[in-house]
Amino acid sequence: MKVVHSAEVAAQPVTDEGARGATVRWLLSCPEGAPNFAMRLFELAPGGRTPLHRHPWEHEVYILQGTAEAVSESGPVEVTAGDAILVLPDERHQLRNAGDGAARFLCLIPLPEED
Amino acid sequence: MKVVHSAEVAAQPVTDEGARGATVRWLLSCPEGAPNFAMRLFELAPGGRTPLHRHPWEHEVYILQGTAEAVSESGPVEVTAGDAILVLPDERHQLRNAGDGAARFLCLIPLPEED
Repeated sequence: MKVVHSAEVAAQPVTDEGARGATVRWLLSCPEGAPNFAMRLFELAPGGRTPLHRHPWEHEVYILQGTAEAVSESGPVEVTAGDAILVLPDERHQLRNAGDGAARFLCLIPLPEED
Repeated sequence: MKVVHSAEVAAQPVTDEGARGATVRWLLSCPEGAPNFAMRLFELAPGGRTPLHRHPWEHEVYILQGTAEAVSESGPVEVTAGDAILVLPDERHQLRNAGDGAARFLCLIPLPEED
């Protein structure tokens, strides 16, 4: 069993094109021994956003704090703390902070299969 | 994209032997179209606990609220909101509420592979 205190994990800026005011902390992934999927903690400053993009793997998101817009092909949906979001593989998506304070969410992704 | 409001998902009692004062909400799993792993939200009443058990799949846990003891072969570790826990496959484990209020945590597990 490994315990990771999220405040002790370095917040790295999200540098993908289209991202703004976003950081990510990798809480549980390969270095911790996670076999199948990774847990990351994102924080969006006011006005912050993740990139509007798509990729062939899913996201499972849980909103921890704040208010955000979850954007997909069918437009934005407001989400707040306690909401879970499933982004399916190849769905275009984006999270935008829609509040005055920080927005924080977990975003889990599958890890690549080992050869 | 699917948005699930956790308060609108029914809390089911955890009936495994050894569980006490514990409920689970399945937020994202097969019915929502999750391809690889499932997100569940557990709540432990004061004095509540999950069973002390082991199984051949991992857990990725994130403490949302309260104080709990994460128990493994090497004893209990206190965890609070913001802590992440990786329980490896076949590790014996248990979560016990160690506070006066409810303890809430996410617990994600891999889904069985399709045949």
